[in-house]
Amino acid sequence: MSDKLLDDISHRRYNPLTGDWILVSPHRSKRPWQGQQEAPFRGDLPGYDPTCYLCPGNQRAQGDQNPPYQNTFVFVNDYSAVKETQQDYAPSSRSSDGEDLAARLLQAQPVTGRCYVLTFSAKHNVTLADMAPADILPVIQTWTRIYASHLSASHPLRPQADKALASIPPNPDGELAPPPRQLRYMQIFENKGAAMGCSNPHPHCQIWTTSVLPDEPARELAQLARYRREHGGQHLLEDYARLETARGERVVWQNDGFLVVCPWWATWPFEVLLIAKRHVRGLVELTEEERKQFAEAVGEVARRYDNLFETSFPYSSGIHQAPIDCTEEEAEASWFHMHFYPPLLRSATVRKFLVGYELLAEPQRDITPEQAAERLRKCGGELYRNLLS
Amino acid sequence: MSDKLLDDISHRRYNPLTGDWILVSPHRSKRPWQGQQEAPFRGDLPGYDPTCYLCPGNQRAQGDQNPPYQNTFVFVNDYSAVKETQQDYAPSSRSSDGEDLAARLLQAQPVTGRCYVLTFSAKHNVTLADMAPADILPVIQTWTRIYASHLSASHPLRPQADKALASIPPNPDGELAPPPRQLRYMQIFENKGAAMGCSNPHPHCQIWTTSVLPDEPARELAQLARYRREHGGQHLLEDYARLETARGERVVWQNDGFLVVCPWWATWPFEVLLIAKRHVRGLVELTEEERKQFAEAVGEVARRYDNLFETSFPYSSGIHQAPIDCTEEEAEASWFHMHFYPPLLRSATVRKFLVGYELLAEPQRDITPEQAAERLRKCGGELYRNLLS
Ligand SMILES: [Zn+2]
Ligand SMILES: [Zn+2]
Repeated sequence: MSDKLLDDISHRRYNPLTGDWILVSPHRSKRPWQGQQEAPFRGDLPGYDPTCYLCPGNQRAQGDQNPPYQNTFVFVNDYSAVKETQQDYAPSSRSSDGEDLAARLLQAQPVTGRCYVLTFSAKHNVTLADMAPADILPVIQTWTRIYASHLSASHPLRPQADKALASIPPNPDGELAPPPRQLRYMQIFENKGAAMGCSNPHPHCQIWTTSVLPDEPARELAQLARYRREHGGQHLLEDYARLETARGERVVWQNDGFLVVCPWWATWPFEVLLIAKRHVRGLVELTEEERKQFAEAVGEVARRYDNLFETSFPYSSGIHQAPIDCTEEEAEASWFHMHFYPPLLRSATVRKFLVGYELLAEPQRDITPEQAAERLRKCGGELYRNLLS
Repeated sequence: MSDKLLDDISHRRYNPLTGDWILVSPHRSKRPWQGQQEAPFRGDLPGYDPTCYLCPGNQRAQGDQNPPYQNTFVFVNDYSAVKETQQDYAPSSRSSDGEDLAARLLQAQPVTGRCYVLTFSAKHNVTLADMAPADILPVIQTWTRIYASHLSASHPLRPQADKALASIPPNPDGELAPPPRQLRYMQIFENKGAAMGCSNPHPHCQIWTTSVLPDEPARELAQLARYRREHGGQHLLEDYARLETARGERVVWQNDGFLVVCPWWATWPFEVLLIAKRHVRGLVELTEEERKQFAEAVGEVARRYDNLFETSFPYSSGIHQAPIDCTEEEAEASWFHMHFYPPLLRSATVRKFLVGYELLAEPQRDITPEQAAERLRKCGGELYRNLLS
């Protein structure tokens, strides 16, 4: 087994989900540094903030008033990145030489859609790390209902969606009718912390739905489909979860439904991948039991992150699953998983920058995913700030 | 001409250099914001800092002493991301089922190489924006000599390299013999400013040479070669420079040798692409006159950036050119250009974050490249801080 050598030599690792490579420099993590010791973050925010545009009952910038909601609350982002309706766009007709070049080199596609904001809790001062699985469950349920209601009529998962909508109790504050025009893709993601450009600590995520399939999920879907073709219909993430479970060294945590690993190809120092253990194509396929397991897994990741540097750990996270409008083949290739991309490197204040060589040549990391997983394995148990006197 | 419509609708644009897409939301730049007004940065650093590990005569962490150099000075990075020599690595032999999966899903390649640090000036308190073209010229000359000396013996540009080495005066402080083992690729890049994780203001860049071709230049090279195949041997960046010169709306500045544009597919708000106007494959093909023009262009970009928000503008920049070991076809497809990726969005302190949707789905921007180019066109002239009384 020569893999132990990878603790010591510079090398690059292949990301089969995207086809990208990442440069790993494990010897660099041995360089000297002043282990910065920050006072642990205890959080002294109020449970309700009258100036927060997400707190129940408050007024938002555009004048709308939030309802006195209980846990999740969804609304259309006042400054969405995409518009629901807009003028039609078609590239101008091509005739002269210059127009020919423009058709090749100045390519644009119109994008429509709708962007939502969704709160995780009525409490201003909690995060997923503070929330028990039972408190996270309503978030999973809301995600599932929103995903279900946005699936196309002919979607391969339509029957499962109808079943989910029938079995999960509706939350009048946590749902909105989908736009009249069928969209192609839904990205559920959370930006947490000022380091991720998120200024409001009220726990929430965003949900962007678009008329196009964005690059990153498109790339993953193509790679997942290719793997199936090349390996007799096997699933990349099923094989990967099996392999990592057997190896153990990159596993952070698991329950019956989900595996949490620092993936072999992680870019961010403490990047984590949460993988469904069976072939779940989208949220609507999770059983009631699996929704609870998913809530438990999400809480587990968030708590271990906070415990690692005794801080409210910043990250971007997001779910990849079947597009909301897709072919049978695309749905079949999809495998439910969630990425966590946290920027912190060594302490609550020393972060990793994706700059320079990363932008111009190739992403690079110092500590190995095996080292990261080992540290995250040790961060289990009670949330550190609940133990502070 | 329906392109005017792109000022108003959400759309995505195609990057032909990488094959990626970028989501553009121009309507969002109309959202209200408090125009943060920072005091202009004047710079009050000393010309020499006894604690700087880059200043002439100072001692570095590992104990080496810098020479009393005049402008450029190069040394091997004490904590390089890649090692020059290391144990050989070969993935373990495959037998059982688990090993088969590992061969597919846990792929690694060893990477060797050498990383340099190169100062731009003996002065601690200047940046490229402060330096006249005549002061930047030694940097271009040093880049050229280092690139030339690292080219393989059979490189298609070897004759040009020998000519450049004969015509550019050597700088004993600005060069080192290349490693004995021929490497594949050299990435010259600069990280400027704390926002880019660069803590030392002494003007300098890094040069990482590796035994592999990293992902980003590999992707560009493949796209450039494909364009040539599909369009009768034409060059993508030649066509693009011609088209942008004719259109004008994304042009920031140009001289006889180089064009500076905010590219159609820019990800960062004020991203800039500097393109050679004729087919230059690598630094060694620049004529003496072109080296001066390149120095002028680099200074022009840096000064306009600083003038934009009256600050020392942070960015990552880097040169893409022919790999230092490559085939005739790869060299022929290469087209000398330089990227500038700056994070600032609205002021010296309001930055763009590449997080959330950008990481999970697709990069997104608000202001259009046309708007960015217009603002940068207006930022010419004297460096703002030279005009402060
Ligand atoms: Zn994914
Ligand atoms: Zn490039």
